[in-house]
Amino acid sequence: MALRFELLARSGGARRGRLTLPHGTVETPVFMPVGTQATVKAMAPGELKELGATIILSNTYHLYLRPGEEVIRAAGGLHAFMNWDRPILTDSGGFQVMSLSELRKIEEEGVWFRSHLDGSKHFFTPERVVEIQETLGSDIMMVLDECPPYPADYAYVKQSTERTTRWAARCKKAKTREELSLFGIVQGGMYKDLRARSVEELVALDFPGYGIGGLSVGEPKELMYEVLDYTTPLLPGDKPRYLMGVGSPNELFAAVAAGVDMFDCVLPTRQARHGKVFTTRGEINVRSARYAKDFGPIDPDCSCRVCREFTRAYIRHLLKANEILGVRLTTWHNLHFLLNLMEEMRKAIEEDRFAESWREFRSLYESGGEDF
Amino acid sequence: MALRFELLARSGGARRGRLTLPHGTVETPVFMPVGTQATVKAMAPGELKELGATIILSNTYHLYLRPGEEVIRAAGGLHAFMNWDRPILTDSGGFQVMSLSELRKIEEEGVWFRSHLDGSKHFFTPERVVEIQETLGSDIMMVLDECPPYPADYAYVKQSTERTTRWAARCKKAKTREELSLFGIVQGGMYKDLRARSVEELVALDFPGYGIGGLSVGEPKELMYEVLDYTTPLLPGDKPRYLMGVGSPNELFAAVAAGVDMFDCVLPTRQARHGKVFTTRGEINVRSARYAKDFGPIDPDCSCRVCREFTRAYIRHLLKANEILGVRLTTWHNLHFLLNLMEEMRKAIEEDRFAESWREFRSLYESGGEDF
Repeated sequence: MALRFELLARSGGARRGRLTLPHGTVETPVFMPVGTQATVKAMAPGELKELGATIILSNTYHLYLRPGEEVIRAAGGLHAFMNWDRPILTDSGGFQVMSLSELRKIEEEGVWFRSHLDGSKHFFTPERVVEIQETLGSDIMMVLDECPPYPADYAYVKQSTERTTRWAARCKKAKTREELSLFGIVQGGMYKDLRARSVEELVALDFPGYGIGGLSVGEPKELMYEVLDYTTPLLPGDKPRYLMGVGSPNELFAAVAAGVDMFDCVLPTRQARHGKVFTTRGEINVRSARYAKDFGPIDPDCSCRVCREFTRAYIRHLLKANEILGVRLTTWHNLHFLLNLMEEMRKAIEEDRFAESWREFRSLYESGGEDF
Repeated sequence: MALRFELLARSGGARRGRLTLPHGTVETPVFMPVGTQATVKAMAPGELKELGATIILSNTYHLYLRPGEEVIRAAGGLHAFMNWDRPILTDSGGFQVMSLSELRKIEEEGVWFRSHLDGSKHFFTPERVVEIQETLGSDIMMVLDECPPYPADYAYVKQSTERTTRWAARCKKAKTREELSLFGIVQGGMYKDLRARSVEELVALDFPGYGIGGLSVGEPKELMYEVLDYTTPLLPGDKPRYLMGVGSPNELFAAVAAGVDMFDCVLPTRQARHGKVFTTRGEINVRSARYAKDFGPIDPDCSCRVCREFTRAYIRHLLKANEILGVRLTTWHNLHFLLNLMEEMRKAIEEDRFAESWREFRSLYESGGEDF
């Protein structure tokens, strides 16, 4: 069995689960730090473990272009290449390729695209992205999908979603490595009937887990939650559900409340590089002049190593001076914040006080921000 | 007593010593990693300790401009600001200011210069640089000096060296914090009589230690060694000797053989950022295409954490993809290499086999390089 998923507890719609994969066990709901180019930016693998990360995400599109699958094959797979022995989920490259807009062309057979690195021309098919991900050796692989933009008209989303489903079937057929798992991806834009049909057809293909794609693509937050709250309960209750690319603290709470188990997002690492850090009282930008002589920690309520050892004033100095250590410290803190948040959510679900826990978090998080 | 220096052993001209400073003990000969902007580039303080660094160097010029002495004063000094509780040596800013060439003007009273950051105008005097370094709280402060370029004519070097000595006397007079130590700096360019006079006049001022400046400024290696071999024995045998800004492996051996005790150099950290790494068989550039599928460590004979955990192929990929972790790993390895080299030198001196140890090192170091 490549994947085992047990449900341990519930609190309202929120689920507390345990996902067992070839490289280890993942307690859910879980946040997966993003390691686009075979590294979670600025972090070493051992540090991710110290932070409690149990699974990371990496990107097929980027790794295919650089270092190339031949290098990773020769290394014995992505785990060995990057020295990470815990589970890895890889996306199919679909999202990145579709984002190239002017540089790509979608056909029934697959998608042509040009490399953002050197303009060279490439072709991804459902079969090809499974082949690459099997070379990477991902514990969880994702099917090739198209993520329609927002807004997009009904006719376009309909034909795109139908093709995504056909591609999902081809991916499943192409899969050869039994120990690895392949997830389907629900699309359907903001149209409930298309979402329902996407779920129905993918479930008929019987995947061991399902991604929910095509959200957080520019639509109003209300609409995103509406589609999410509608779609999630349609999915089989005994399979893991993964909301792709979503990861602000409030979104994580809302999605867990809707019954989602897995998340990835570049937000904590990308924001960190611009000095934006999470605190229990909201986000602050530690580059701000107001922190020049602030010798307190990023977040007085945080227990992470950065908050124990370094001050806002020092981190601000490092960032202003373009010193690598600055980005290391803000990245560390932000990842700790989200990983710790998920840990608290898991506890709250076990104790059946998830809604209360969310309310408590939100009342503090929306209280201060730049002003505290 | 602000500084205690004990000589523990000798092997030829090489000295094995122990330097006791307010923030701890430093076994010599010692290499001091450079933390220009209150951080050794890409490294965290705890990592420097893990590598065995016992003292680091920081730069008065850079810290004066950013974050500014007021911030560091408010933090309670540089140790607290950067969370480094072991000894710190700071240069006076003289070398950086003099390097600005077009942007500075030297007078008897001090030196005018423009900030490389914003063009603002500033004035450093011997008294002022001591004041700033006392605010930083450096275990070892350096006097304001002028480092003449190479080549420079006799008349110029003579008047410059005389002024450096006058400035040294003013620095000494300006010093107020008893627990901190101030080192003089020997200049004199490539002229032996000027070097001898510089030593004589500085020694008359009775500093607790002496920097040897003005070497490795573009002169041929032979000439540098000639001046170094001439100058070092003129210095008092019971005081620490610090060769400023020198740090390639062979130069370190040569200078220790001449009786030098302390070193700093940006070489290991700067080279690391360009993929150039030390190995026991010479330098290699790990960015080279030849390492794309090389799954061995940077240096098969190295025991550092990077060589135990990561491959040349992975590090090459990280550097090519501009990932911070790449620079972190090469920096870690290069610092380990030099700190470990000093450790081996200290052992060799204790066992009175320094010359032999140098021969062994050199025969291997010059054997391979790019080709192994």
